[in-house]
Amino acid sequence: MTELIDPVDRKALDRVVADLEAAWNAGDGSAFGKPFSDNADFVTIRAEHFHGWDAIAGGHAAIFRTIYAQSVNHCTVESERLLRPDVALMHVRSVLDVPSGPLAGRHNAIFSMVLTRESPGWQIASFHNTVRPPSVPV
Amino acid sequence: MTELIDPVDRKALDRVVADLEAAWNAGDGSAFGKPFSDNADFVTIRAEHFHGWDAIAGGHAAIFRTIYAQSVNHCTVESERLLRPDVALMHVRSVLDVPSGPLAGRHNAIFSMVLTRESPGWQIASFHNTVRPPSVPV
Repeated sequence: MTELIDPVDRKALDRVVADLEAAWNAGDGSAFGKPFSDNADFVTIRAEHFHGWDAIAGGHAAIFRTIYAQSVNHCTVESERLLRPDVALMHVRSVLDVPSGPLAGRHNAIFSMVLTRESPGWQIASFHNTVRPPSVPV
Repeated sequence: MTELIDPVDRKALDRVVADLEAAWNAGDGSAFGKPFSDNADFVTIRAEHFHGWDAIAGGHAAIFRTIYAQSVNHCTVESERLLRPDVALMHVRSVLDVPSGPLAGRHNAIFSMVLTRESPGWQIASFHNTVRPPSVPV
Protein backbone atom coordinates (compact mmCIF):
# COMPACT_ATOMS: atom_id res chain seq x y z
CA MET A 1 0.00 0.00 0.00
CA THR A 2 1.41 3.35 -0.99
CA GLU A 3 -0.43 6.56 -0.36
CA LEU A 4 -0.10 9.73 -2.32
CA ILE A 5 1.52 12.59 -0.47
CA ASP A 6 -0.51 15.74 -0.30
CA PRO A 7 1.27 19.04 -0.97
CA VAL A 8 1.34 20.06 2.69
CA ASP A 9 3.06 16.84 3.75
CA ARG A 10 5.40 16.94 0.79
CA LYS A 11 6.46 20.44 1.73
CA ALA A 12 7.02 19.41 5.35
CA LEU A 13 9.04 16.33 4.35
CA ASP A 14 11.15 18.30 1.88
CA ARG A 15 11.71 20.85 4.64
CA VAL A 16 13.28 18.15 6.81
CA VAL A 17 15.83 17.48 4.07
CA ALA A 18 16.46 21.21 3.61
CA ASP A 19 16.95 21.58 7.36
CA LEU A 20 19.47 18.71 7.45
CA GLU A 21 21.37 20.26 4.54
CA ALA A 22 21.37 23.70 6.16
CA ALA A 23 22.54 22.27 9.50
CA TRP A 24 25.35 20.37 7.78
CA ASN A 25 26.49 23.43 5.86
CA ALA A 26 26.39 25.50 9.06
CA GLY A 27 28.44 22.83 10.84
CA ASP A 28 25.74 22.70 13.53
CA GLY A 29 25.46 19.24 15.09
CA SER A 30 22.60 20.19 17.37
CA ALA A 31 20.54 21.53 14.46
CA PHE A 32 21.40 18.43 12.43
CA GLY A 33 20.03 16.23 15.18
CA LYS A 34 16.86 18.24 15.68
CA PRO A 35 14.60 16.44 13.14
CA PHE A 36 15.39 13.03 14.64
CA SER A 37 13.23 11.27 17.17
CA ASP A 38 14.69 10.56 20.60
CA ASN A 39 15.25 6.90 19.76
CA ALA A 40 16.10 7.23 16.05
CA ASP A 41 18.32 4.71 14.29
CA PHE A 42 21.20 6.10 12.23
CA VAL A 43 23.49 4.00 10.00
CA THR A 44 26.56 5.77 8.66
CA ILE A 45 28.49 5.23 5.42
CA ARG A 46 30.92 3.22 7.59
CA ALA A 47 28.15 0.81 8.64
CA GLU A 48 28.15 2.20 12.16
CA HIS A 49 24.76 2.10 13.86
CA PHE A 50 23.92 4.91 16.26
CA HIS A 51 20.84 5.23 18.40
CA GLY A 52 19.09 8.35 19.58
CA TRP A 53 19.18 12.07 19.27
CA ASP A 54 22.20 12.62 21.55
CA ALA A 55 24.44 10.22 19.63
CA ILE A 56 23.36 11.61 16.26
CA ALA A 57 23.75 15.27 17.22
CA GLY A 58 26.97 14.68 19.12
CA GLY A 59 28.49 12.52 16.43
CA HIS A 60 27.77 15.11 13.78
CA ALA A 61 29.10 17.94 15.93
CA ALA A 62 32.36 15.97 16.11
CA ILE A 63 32.72 15.32 12.37
CA PHE A 64 31.75 18.92 11.57
CA ARG A 65 34.77 20.01 13.64
CA THR A 66 37.16 17.47 12.09
CA ILE A 67 36.96 15.38 8.91
CA TYR A 68 34.03 17.32 7.42
CA ALA A 69 34.99 20.81 8.60
CA GLN A 70 33.83 23.49 6.12
CA SER A 71 32.33 20.84 3.87
CA VAL A 72 29.32 21.66 1.72
CA ASN A 73 26.47 19.20 1.25
CA HIS A 74 23.87 19.43 -1.48
CA CYS A 75 20.82 17.19 -1.12
CA THR A 76 18.26 16.27 -3.77
CA VAL A 77 15.10 14.34 -2.96
CA GLU A 78 15.00 11.39 -5.34
CA SER A 79 11.76 9.79 -4.20
CA GLU A 80 9.25 10.01 -1.40
CA ARG A 81 6.16 8.02 -0.64
CA LEU A 82 3.86 7.24 2.24
CA LEU A 83 3.89 3.68 3.56
CA ARG A 84 0.99 4.65 5.82
CA PRO A 85 -0.77 8.01 6.27
CA ASP A 86 1.65 8.76 9.12
CA VAL A 87 4.80 6.95 7.89
CA ALA A 88 6.91 8.33 5.03
CA LEU A 89 9.85 6.80 3.15
CA MET A 90 12.30 9.13 1.42
CA HIS A 91 15.42 8.56 -0.68
CA VAL A 92 17.80 11.48 -1.03
CA ARG A 93 20.95 11.89 -3.10
CA SER A 94 23.73 13.93 -1.54
CA VAL A 95 26.83 15.47 -3.04
CA LEU A 96 29.40 16.43 -0.44
CA ASP A 97 32.40 18.62 -1.18
CA VAL A 98 35.15 18.43 1.44
CA PRO A 99 37.73 21.19 1.06
CA SER A 100 40.66 19.64 2.91
CA GLY A 101 41.89 16.84 5.13
CA PRO A 102 41.94 13.07 4.62
CA LEU A 103 38.53 13.07 2.90
CA ALA A 104 39.15 16.07 0.64
CA GLY A 105 37.17 15.82 -2.58
CA ARG A 106 33.65 15.11 -3.76
CA HIS A 107 31.58 12.28 -2.30
CA ASN A 108 28.28 11.05 -3.70
CA ALA A 109 25.88 9.18 -1.47
CA ILE A 110 22.28 8.13 -1.12
CA PHE A 111 20.43 8.10 2.16
CA SER A 112 17.03 6.73 2.98
CA MET A 113 14.87 8.01 5.79
CA VAL A 114 11.73 6.78 7.45
CA LEU A 115 9.73 9.52 9.10
CA THR A 116 6.69 9.27 11.31
CA ARG A 117 4.10 11.92 11.93
CA GLU A 118 4.21 12.82 15.60
CA SER A 119 2.57 15.62 17.54
CA PRO A 120 5.41 18.08 16.77
CA GLY A 121 5.33 17.07 13.09
CA TRP A 122 7.37 14.68 10.95
CA GLN A 123 10.32 13.13 12.79
CA ILE A 124 13.08 10.90 11.45
CA ALA A 125 12.85 7.40 12.93
CA SER A 126 15.48 5.83 10.68
CA PHE A 127 18.34 7.22 8.58
CA HIS A 128 20.65 5.02 6.52
CA ASN A 129 23.46 6.30 4.32
CA THR A 130 25.61 4.65 1.66
CA VAL A 131 28.42 6.29 -0.25
CA ARG A 132 28.77 5.61 -3.95
CA PRO A 133 32.08 3.95 -4.84
CA PRO A 134 34.04 5.91 -7.47
CA SER A 135 33.63 2.94 -9.84
CA VAL A 136 29.85 3.39 -10.00
CA PRO A 137 28.58 5.99 -12.49
CA VAL A 138 26.49 8.84 -11.05
CA MET B 1 6.23 6.23 19.33
CA THR B 2 7.64 2.73 19.45
CA GLU B 3 5.49 -0.31 20.00
CA LEU B 4 6.59 -3.55 21.53
CA ILE B 5 6.67 -6.50 19.15
CA ASP B 6 4.63 -9.47 20.24
CA PRO B 7 6.19 -12.92 19.88
CA VAL B 8 4.11 -13.85 16.84
CA ASP B 9 5.20 -10.77 14.91
CA ARG B 10 8.80 -11.14 16.05
CA LYS B 11 8.85 -14.69 14.77
CA ALA B 12 7.36 -13.63 11.44
CA LEU B 13 9.83 -10.76 11.05
CA ASP B 14 12.80 -12.94 11.96
CA ARG B 15 11.49 -15.47 9.43
CA VAL B 16 11.80 -12.85 6.67
CA VAL B 17 15.50 -12.50 7.48
CA ALA B 18 15.95 -16.27 7.62
CA ASP B 19 14.22 -16.58 4.24
CA LEU B 20 16.49 -13.93 2.69
CA GLU B 21 19.55 -15.71 4.07
CA ALA B 22 18.36 -19.10 2.81
CA ALA B 23 17.56 -17.70 -0.63
CA TRP B 24 21.00 -16.08 -0.84
CA ASN B 25 22.75 -19.26 0.18
CA ALA B 26 20.71 -21.24 -2.35
CA GLY B 27 21.63 -18.71 -5.05
CA ASP B 28 17.91 -18.27 -5.77
CA GLY B 29 17.09 -14.76 -6.99
CA SER B 30 13.38 -15.40 -7.24
CA ALA B 31 13.21 -16.63 -3.66
CA PHE B 32 15.31 -13.69 -2.53
CA GLY B 33 12.83 -11.30 -4.10
CA LYS B 34 9.77 -13.02 -2.68
CA PRO B 35 9.48 -11.11 0.65
CA PHE B 36 9.58 -7.73 -1.12
CA SER B 37 6.52 -5.74 -2.05
CA ASP B 38 5.87 -5.06 -5.74
CA ASN B 39 7.11 -1.48 -5.44
CA ALA B 40 9.85 -1.98 -2.85
CA ASP B 41 12.89 0.30 -2.69
CA PHE B 42 16.30 -1.38 -2.57
CA VAL B 43 19.61 0.45 -2.07
CA THR B 44 22.75 -1.61 -2.65
CA ILE B 45 26.19 -1.31 -1.07
CA ARG B 46 27.15 0.53 -4.27
CA ALA B 47 24.48 3.19 -3.65
CA GLU B 48 22.38 1.90 -6.52
CA HIS B 49 18.64 2.35 -6.03
CA PHE B 50 16.37 -0.32 -7.47
CA HIS B 51 12.60 -0.34 -7.50
CA GLY B 52 10.23 -3.26 -7.43
CA TRP B 53 10.17 -6.98 -7.13
CA ASP B 54 11.35 -7.71 -10.68
CA ALA B 55 14.47 -5.57 -10.41
CA ILE B 56 15.35 -6.95 -6.98
CA ALA B 57 14.82 -10.61 -7.88
CA GLY B 58 16.46 -10.24 -11.29
CA GLY B 59 19.41 -8.29 -9.97
CA HIS B 60 20.08 -10.88 -7.31
CA ALA B 61 19.73 -13.76 -9.76
CA ALA B 62 22.46 -12.06 -11.79
CA ILE B 63 24.91 -11.54 -8.91
CA PHE B 64 24.27 -15.08 -7.61
CA ARG B 65 25.51 -16.36 -10.99
CA THR B 66 28.55 -14.08 -11.12
CA ILE B 67 30.34 -12.05 -8.44
CA TYR B 68 28.60 -13.77 -5.52
CA ALA B 69 28.44 -17.32 -6.93
CA GLN B 70 28.66 -19.94 -4.17
CA SER B 71 28.91 -17.24 -1.51
CA VAL B 72 27.57 -17.85 1.98
CA ASN B 73 25.69 -15.17 3.89
CA HIS B 74 25.06 -15.26 7.62
CA CYS B 75 22.53 -12.75 8.97
CA THR B 76 22.01 -11.68 12.57
CA VAL B 77 19.11 -9.47 13.63
CA GLU B 78 20.59 -6.58 15.57
CA SER B 79 17.42 -4.69 16.41
CA GLU B 80 13.77 -4.62 15.51
CA ARG B 81 10.97 -2.36 16.57
CA LEU B 82 7.54 -1.29 15.45
CA LEU B 83 7.10 2.27 14.25
CA ARG B 84 3.38 1.60 14.04
CA PRO B 85 1.39 -1.57 14.75
CA ASP B 86 1.73 -2.47 11.06
CA VAL B 87 5.15 -0.96 10.26
CA ALA B 88 8.38 -2.58 11.46
CA LEU B 89 11.98 -1.36 11.33
CA MET B 90 14.78 -3.93 11.45
CA HIS B 91 18.56 -3.68 11.42
CA VAL B 92 20.48 -6.79 10.44
CA ARG B 93 24.21 -7.54 10.39
CA SER B 94 25.45 -9.77 7.61
CA VAL B 95 28.71 -11.61 7.15
CA LEU B 96 29.29 -12.72 3.58
CA ASP B 97 31.98 -15.17 2.56
CA VAL B 98 32.78 -15.15 -1.14
CA PRO B 99 34.91 -18.11 -2.22
CA SER B 100 36.41 -16.77 -5.44
CA GLY B 101 36.40 -14.03 -8.04
CA PRO B 102 37.04 -10.30 -7.74
CA LEU B 103 35.21 -10.05 -4.40
CA ALA B 104 36.74 -13.16 -2.80
CA GLY B 105 36.93 -12.83 0.96
CA ARG B 106 34.75 -11.85 3.89
CA HIS B 107 32.48 -8.81 3.77
CA ASN B 108 30.65 -7.34 6.77
CA ALA B 109 27.58 -5.21 6.21
CA ILE B 110 24.50 -3.86 7.90
CA PHE B 111 21.15 -3.58 6.23
CA SER B 112 18.00 -1.90 7.43
CA MET B 113 14.53 -2.91 6.35
CA VAL B 114 11.13 -1.38 6.70
CA LEU B 115 8.31 -3.90 6.53
CA THR B 116 4.59 -3.33 6.40
CA ARG B 117 1.89 -5.74 7.42
CA GLU B 118 -0.16 -6.55 4.34
CA SER B 119 -2.83 -9.16 3.73
CA PRO B 120 -0.27 -11.87 2.84
CA GLY B 121 1.83 -10.96 5.90
CA TRP B 122 4.89 -8.79 6.47
CA GLN B 123 6.43 -7.45 3.26
CA ILE B 124 9.64 -5.50 2.75
CA ALA B 125 8.92 -1.95 1.57
CA SER B 126 12.48 -0.67 1.91
CA PHE B 127 15.88 -2.35 2.08
CA HIS B 128 19.13 -0.41 2.43
CA ASN B 129 22.57 -1.99 2.70
CA THR B 130 25.98 -0.59 3.65
CA VAL B 131 29.23 -2.52 3.69
CA ARG B 132 31.66 -1.96 6.54
CA PRO B 133 35.03 -0.62 5.37
CA PRO B 134 37.94 -2.80 6.51
CA SER B 135 39.18 0.13 8.63
CA VAL B 136 36.13 -0.01 10.90
CA PRO B 137 36.26 -2.55 13.75
CA VAL B 138 33.49 -5.17 13.80
